[in-house]
Amino acid sequence: MTETDGRKLRGNRTRASVLDAAVKLASVEGLEGLTLSRLAAQLEITKSGLFTHWRGKEGLQLAAMEYASEQWVTEIVAPALAQPTPLQRLWALHANRLDFYERGQLPGRCFFSIVFREFDDRPGPIHDRLVIQSEQWHGFLVSMIEAAVAAGQLRPDIDADLLAYEIDVLGEGVVSRVRMLDPKLVFGAARAAVLQRLRAASVDPSVLPDS
Amino acid sequence: MTETDGRKLRGNRTRASVLDAAVKLASVEGLEGLTLSRLAAQLEITKSGLFTHWRGKEGLQLAAMEYASEQWVTEIVAPALAQPTPLQRLWALHANRLDFYERGQLPGRCFFSIVFREFDDRPGPIHDRLVIQSEQWHGFLVSMIEAAVAAGQLRPDIDADLLAYEIDVLGEGVVSRVRMLDPKLVFGAARAAVLQRLRAASVDPSVLPDS
Repeated sequence: MTETDGRKLRGNRTRASVLDAAVKLASVEGLEGLTLSRLAAQLEITKSGLFTHWRGKEGLQLAAMEYASEQWVTEIVAPALAQPTPLQRLWALHANRLDFYERGQLPGRCFFSIVFREFDDRPGPIHDRLVIQSEQWHGFLVSMIEAAVAAGQLRPDIDADLLAYEIDVLGEGVVSRVRMLDPKLVFGAARAAVLQRLRAASVDPSVLPDS
Repeated sequence: MTETDGRKLRGNRTRASVLDAAVKLASVEGLEGLTLSRLAAQLEITKSGLFTHWRGKEGLQLAAMEYASEQWVTEIVAPALAQPTPLQRLWALHANRLDFYERGQLPGRCFFSIVFREFDDRPGPIHDRLVIQSEQWHGFLVSMIEAAVAAGQLRPDIDADLLAYEIDVLGEGVVSRVRMLDPKLVFGAARAAVLQRLRAASVDPSVLPDS
């Protein structure tokens, strides 16, 4: 068995496929539900196969967080940065995030939304990593807004910190509401709220969709 | 013991004090962590004393939800309705909610924010009750907005459903973020975002605070 697991888990492609399963599992069970034995059972391999990659639960949890961040960049950030202007990039970050949720790419909820709720009040390496990641995400949105101001697309008098905060809250706000209220209403409102704000703050809204 | 518990639990004042403890416990442990035995242990009474009020866990959970709703009305809605004009009432609903969170009246998080995350994808009486409560809260915000429009305080062209959604998301958005980011930034942004929106939508912003 162990040798088979060794083969199964050799190479980065296999490591990625294990972490992909880990992120999917955590999106349903939470990061606390992500254990080596549970993951091994789902992948139909033995724990020893996973131990060759991660010594224990926390190592696996942190690796899953890194993998989820890479997924966020691939699915949401990279395609947004391909947009022609800063304002269009900023809008695409929000629109791509909503599309990512709406596609239901993960079987459960937004990975980060779940992990935030689990670890926002639990000191430790995972909490510390989350603080860094949320500050990085906020700072990235701020830098996108400042680029749009510098390009003359957003009014210079806007509060970049505030706008970045609003965009993040309105994006993440769909995660639980979409399970309680009409999804059409929730995704529609999350899209319209940010679009309305960006149009109001922009010098020339014509580069943004009408709705 | 049972007779003592019977005395301890006689009357509505005692029932209220038990439910108050139940809501506090659920704000930390979640509604699933709210069991008769756990609550009895915390109140230093026997389960039999609680059984005189609730047959089982679900009955206690539903009673705690009703009690939390009453608390929401007492702490947030009632003082807002005491404001002189519809627009001031609408703003006070948001401001009072943020104050309620900032006071840290509950040892854990917002009761409803926790219960939503626990039951948004679990069919059953609690989920059904949550759907009704969230639709009622949204409908109440919409009615407050429509009253402000009817009174000529908000522009008639605003989208009441959208504005109500934004106010709720920006209010609830602080619950987890305040544990990850600088609370001053989080509460400040949640206040400024809604205030900015209301001022922009209002015919005469002078009845609203400047910041």
